This record gives sequence, structure tokens and C-alpha cells, in this order.
Amino acid sequence: MPSAKTQPARGMRDFLPEDVRKREYVISVIKEVYERYGFEPLETPAAENIETLMGKYGEEGNQLMFKILKRGVHEGTGEADLALRYDLTVPLARVVAEYRDKLPKFFKRYQIQPVWRADRPARGRYREFYQCDVDVLGSRSMIVEAEIISASSEALGKLGFSDFVVRLNHRKVLTGILDAAGIAQEKHVTALIALDKLDKIGADGVLREFEAREVVAAEAGKELLALFEPSGDNEEILARLERFIGSHVIGLEGLADLREIISYLPSSVVRIDPSLARGLTYYTGAIMEIQVEDLAGSMGGGGRYDNLIGMFLGRDIPACGFSLGLERIILVMSERNMFPVNLLRSPADVMMAVWRDAVEDALSVAAELRRQGLRVDVYPERDVKLGNQISYASKRSIPFVAFIGEEERGKGLVVLKNLKTGEQEILDRGEVAHVVLREVRRVE
Amino acid sequence: MPSAKTQPARGMRDFLPEDVRKREYVISVIKEVYERYGFEPLETPAAENIETLMGKYGEEGNQLMFKILKRGVHEGTGEADLALRYDLTVPLARVVAEYRDKLPKFFKRYQIQPVWRADRPARGRYREFYQCDVDVLGSRSMIVEAEIISASSEALGKLGFSDFVVRLNHRKVLTGILDAAGIAQEKHVTALIALDKLDKIGADGVLREFEAREVVAAEAGKELLALFEPSGDNEEILARLERFIGSHVIGLEGLADLREIISYLPSSVVRIDPSLARGLTYYTGAIMEIQVEDLAGSMGGGGRYDNLIGMFLGRDIPACGFSLGLERIILVMSERNMFPVNLLRSPADVMMAVWRDAVEDALSVAAELRRQGLRVDVYPERDVKLGNQISYASKRSIPFVAFIGEEERGKGLVVLKNLKTGEQEILDRGEVAHVVLREVRRVE
Repeated sequence: MPSAKTQPARGMRDFLPEDVRKREYVISVIKEVYERYGFEPLETPAAENIETLMGKYGEEGNQLMFKILKRGVHEGTGEADLALRYDLTVPLARVVAEYRDKLPKFFKRYQIQPVWRADRPARGRYREFYQCDVDVLGSRSMIVEAEIISASSEALGKLGFSDFVVRLNHRKVLTGILDAAGIAQEKHVTALIALDKLDKIGADGVLREFEAREVVAAEAGKELLALFEPSGDNEEILARLERFIGSHVIGLEGLADLREIISYLPSSVVRIDPSLARGLTYYTGAIMEIQVEDLAGSMGGGGRYDNLIGMFLGRDIPACGFSLGLERIILVMSERNMFPVNLLRSPADVMMAVWRDAVEDALSVAAELRRQGLRVDVYPERDVKLGNQISYASKRSIPFVAFIGEEERGKGLVVLKNLKTGEQEILDRGEVAHVVLREVRRVE
Repeated sequence: MPSAKTQPARGMRDFLPEDVRKREYVISVIKEVYERYGFEPLETPAAENIETLMGKYGEEGNQLMFKILKRGVHEGTGEADLALRYDLTVPLARVVAEYRDKLPKFFKRYQIQPVWRADRPARGRYREFYQCDVDVLGSRSMIVEAEIISASSEALGKLGFSDFVVRLNHRKVLTGILDAAGIAQEKHVTALIALDKLDKIGADGVLREFEAREVVAAEAGKELLALFEPSGDNEEILARLERFIGSHVIGLEGLADLREIISYLPSSVVRIDPSLARGLTYYTGAIMEIQVEDLAGSMGGGGRYDNLIGMFLGRDIPACGFSLGLERIILVMSERNMFPVNLLRSPADVMMAVWRDAVEDALSVAAELRRQGLRVDVYPERDVKLGNQISYASKRSIPFVAFIGEEERGKGLVVLKNLKTGEQEILDRGEVAHVVLREVRRVE
């Protein structure tokens, strides 16, 4: 009986064969695209020394981290000396410090591994989930932002998404806007938190929050919000922002970065969106997020963070990265039926039925078919009626059953039954692979 | 400065790009072979509820298990409610109980995931390492043993191993032998422990242990050891064993199984080896191990264990499995230089150099080359002398650099420099991919 005893741990998941195939498909497409952009794979251990992680994710992170008991006699004390990986960025910072003589000046890595957080599980939120990060370290050039946006968009495109939007903004532009709106420095964070909810609570809601938290006068608030109305193309939006910011030096730097980034990209790829805030600390330059209509939240996001990766090295290393939301991508692709048909196929192309004294012959035919690239299951028991063996294959959606009957033995002949049509033909052993492959490929 | 602070946790490893490529290569070959045998992938969470794992691996297992502190207010008590996966067999048993209505009657799964053990680290022994298991559940047929031996041997063959031996024995045959040698039931375990050391301490050493532990009289011990001398082919060995065992019913069952297994396999694949013991509990039937000359210990091993997988289900489920030693396979392949040359290749096929006002052109050429399947790095900074950009590519062993010089701009031309020969040619944009691909494929 299934029971709490046999369920996976809370918030974690078992992946049965079809789930694994879906996940591996998505990961392989993403990897293939990142590799073509010159990114290289990195893997780090599931557990880190606890002092490597503690304090790096704020108070919430400290609490949500899975901590591992020190082994041996110390176990009784409850002391933890390891913790499970909480994200892929802190391990990257550690790797950069540890192997800096081995790594290239511009380290372009991707890393697709699980992380663990003791969050309250909810729909689409798990305690074990994959992150899928690309980062370029070592350069402040906007070519990096452009390449990262290209690569991540292309990965989604290859997965079959054609309706996504890359929203692009810049932390310095946000600073310029808030300064120009007359919002005091110490109210910037509060203002951005309110602005971040624009999608959900609308302009009026944001204005009410501005008032409640004394962020800015009503009139100036309205002017500010007008800036975020999604009208015009990128050039028009940039021009509007420039007029608003005026001579704000930092803000103009941000605008120049944005202009440079979009100059490097085909015009349809990104949409400048001044309302994009993406968290409040951490990012220092461009920020971006990819969205589709039917998913609340983003399919992925990232940006420039020049002051973080050097944390273990004692000097700044400029960095820009992007994280694709693997679990969300899989969720949307499942809902939209975007997985290729042949992924959801049966576990084998053909099942070899076996019969008492002909087991050796059956196994040798199976070996031949496998050599020709077919996925061949062999029915494991030799005293079961052929009809039952065929039912088993049929239940498992295996499209063909092959067997050697009394008539065929010693003649180099094999019976091949197509379970979809019910047709059955007697073939030379050498022909079987050809017939099965033709059908299997036709379906794919 | 690298320091204890930036090293991975004790006994765990970071995998830099070349390491990841090697590991992924080995895993992909193994998976491909197992898929052709009709095995399906399964993945389970890194952490399990602690009661799922505790007590399943003996006292040693309880101690070597990494235990995770309960979160929240309970953290202070030192109570653990989760533990890291210790092997892939107990999670399989849990999965079989939890999803038994969804799984086929004969569940053939492979699972390639890390496990964690707080063992004392040593050369080749890690606290985080991969296991690579195949198991067939639900059948007592020897066809299963034959298929598992075939698949595992073929995986090693595809990786380039041609000098391995599959040793095959049977727990029931061992029982028959020990009974026939007049060794009391309660001394069987002691006898097997001594026999297991035959490779290391020789026949004389084993006899001394027999004497010291009063296992069997000296004369009978000598007769027993003669049985283990590696002489004759499988048929001769089986005949010798049969003579020794006489009418011992259990032993004869084991011999019949062995005869059936080898009848299903090409004659050169396995060697019956009565001295193979493979641990003492757990296995109930055939046992096997794959070895190569230059590795102490095995490349993998397995066998039949009919009384374990049903542990959460409350009824026996017959099972036979094999585990390839991924870390050992990688070790031997590295020492023997068995990895394909193109795995150790550079991170890109070509690097696109960039120059001030020609960045957009350079990025568009990069996009074209990527569309044609090349892995293209783009130098990220546009104010760096071309010579320095080329040095960077050269240092990273990227075979080609492409760039658009003053002369070529606006003419649809690209300069392609072969860094191995130093030759440089001016090509139409459309020709570049062709030239690079020709060279890259030649090398592979």
C-alpha cells in the first residue's frame, strides 16, 4: 500500500521514465544552444561547507537552507557542518576563487543542477528543483548582455516557444528615474517595491502605496507612472526616459548601456520596459526577464551583478548572468503539449517474444536488431503463452512484437507483428530492423 | 587566495568543463546502450525521509549516512528528519511500492545519480559519487541475468574496453560447495570471507584462515581450494563443480541456473568463477563482477536479490541488477587515454574577434555560424587590439579566429585565421562555416 512511508520527502519528486525523458529533452536543448555560444559546463557538489553558504542569502536563506549534521561523535550535539546547495551563484564564486589560475579571463559557464530550499511547498514550488544558469565573468562589455539575451532566447525558441517577450531595463536608469521624480534616496527601495507590483495592482494601486508610504507627492507620482505606460517602440521609450531623466549622470550611463545592447540585437528580440525592477539588491546594471502570456511570473531572468562573484576573492569580478526556470518551462510545455511525440513514445521499438527452446535464437535476433540501433525489449519469461506476451507489449505501447514460431525455426525467418494494425508478416531476419525503423521514423 | 574557504567540502569534487565533458560522455554511452536494451530512466530525490533509509544498510550505513537537520524551531534540538541518498536500491524499492499501479509487470530501469556517504576519503573514494544501476524487477527467469550481463558488457565495449572479464558465480552453488566440503552451516560466512581474499592472500593464506577459524579440516580444505583453481573452460568448471557437489539439491539448482545463463550468451563473454563471493548477505542467486587487469577491485558487479525490493511492499519481488562503477571507469579511461580526442577539444570551434564600429557585423556573422552548427565564442570587448584577441583564442586552443577588418567591412567578407597553421584567408561570409567545419571534423 502506498503510504507516507513510500512517498518521496515533502516537496521533492520522483521522476518516472516519461518525466525523466521530458526533463532530459529540455536540458539537452538548452545545453546544445549554450554550447554553440561558447559556454562551458560546470558542476559543483550538492553539499558545501556551511560557512560557504551561511550569510550569503540573507536571514531567509539561512532559515530555508538544508543543513547537514556533523558526523560521528558530534552527531548528538546537533552541530551542522555542511549545507545543501541553495543556488548556483555562490558555488560559482567559490570556484572562481579556487581555480582562478585555471580559468580563462572571460569565464563563460553554464550549470544545470538541482538546488534545495526548505520553502513551504506549493503548486510549482518544490524543495528540490533545478536551476539552469549561464554567466559570463570578467567583462563589463554590453556585448555580454547581448550574447546572454540571444542565447537564452534561442534556447526557448528551439524548445518551440515563439510568443515570449524579453523585457529589458537597467538599475541605473531606475535610479535616474526615481531621482528625477524627486524621490529621496532612502525611499528608492520602497518605491521600487511598489512599482514591482504594477502588473498586479495597476497604476492606481501603486499611487496609493506611494501615498501611504510617503514616497512622493501625488502629482509627481502620476508623472512617474505615465513613464511606465507601455506605448511606443524601444526608441520612443528611450527618448521619453531621456527627457525625464534630464542630465542625471548615472541614469544616462544606464540609457547608453541599453542603447548599446539593443544595437547588438535583432530589433524584435527585446522590449525596453522601465517598470521591470527584478529584486532590489544584487544587480548593478542591465536587468532582463523573459515572459509568456499564460504564465504568471517569468520563464527566466537575469542581469549584471558586478560586486558579487568576487566575494571569496577579495576583489570585484564583473559578471552578467541569466537563469532559465527549468521547472516552469517544463510546466508550460506540458500544458501546451509542446513535447515532441517521439519523447512520449514507448520504452522500446520492438519486443522480442521468447518461446521455450527458441530463447537463444530470440536473443540473437534481439542482439542483431540492437546492433542496428533499435531499442529492443525481450520478454523475460519463456513459459508464457505468446498471446500473453503480445498483450504485455501492447499494454506498454510497444509498436512491434517479433518472434520465431515453430514454422520459422532454423530457417532464418522471424514473424513481425505490427500491434497498431494487427498485421503480421514473416520476414528474413535481416529485414526486420528495416521494417521497424521505417515505421518508427515515420511516426517521429 | 585559494584556501580551505574556497575548496569543495571534504571528499567532494568540483568538475571543471573538461571533467564534466568526460563524465557526460561516459554517462551518455551507458545510457544509450541501456536504452537499446529496453531499460527506462528513473530519478529520485537527493534526500529521503530518514526512516526510509535508517536501518537498511546495517550499523555502518547508519553511521555513514549524511543526516539533514529538521528545519525551523526544531533546528536547535539536533533532530534529523531527512538523509541523503545512500544508494539507488532502497529508493527503487520505495518507488516500486509507491507507484506499483503505474509500473509495468517487469520494471527495467536504469538510474544514474549521485549518492553520499561520509566515508573516510581516499584515492578513488569520495563522499559524493555516482552510481549507475540497472535492475530488472518482477521475473525469476535467467533471461534477465543474461540480458543484464550483455547490456553491461556492451556498455563497457562501447566505451572502448576490450580486455575485461565477466566473472559469474551463484550463491546456491557456493552453499552446495561449502556443504559438500563438510563445512558447518554456521561457518559458511566465515569460510566465504576467507575465500573472498583468495586473490590477495593465495590458497595458502586461505587455508591458514580456515585453520585459525576452525572452518574445516586441512585435507578437506585443500580439496575445496583445488576447486577454485582457474583451469578449464566453463563446461569443465561446471562439470568439476557438479562432481564436487554431488546430489546437493540447492547447489544443483544453482548449477542449472549457471548453465542456462551461459547458454544465452556468446561463449566468450563470461567466465564461471567459483571463488567469486561478492559480499555475504543480500544476493540470493547468480552473482557477477566485471574486472580489468589494471584495476584492483571491479568495474562493476551485481546479481540476483529476490528478497529485498519488496521491503516496503510486504511481499517479495524478484530482482536482478548490476551497478557499473562510474568513478572507476572514468579513472581507468583517463589513465589509459581512452577518451575521444574531440571531447578534450577547445570550448569553441571559432572565436569571432570584434572591433569598435564593426561589433554588429561581427555578431551577425557569429549568429550565422551558430545557425550552421558551429560553436562560436565572441570576444566580449571591443577596444582590445586584434593581436591580443587572437592570443586569447590561441591560449584557449580555439582553432580559428574570424574577424571583419577595415578592408572587409560592407563587402560581405570575413578574414579567417587558422591558429594552428597561422594561415589567414579572406572569405565570403557564407564560406566560413564550411571551411571551419571541414577542419574541425577532420580532427574529430
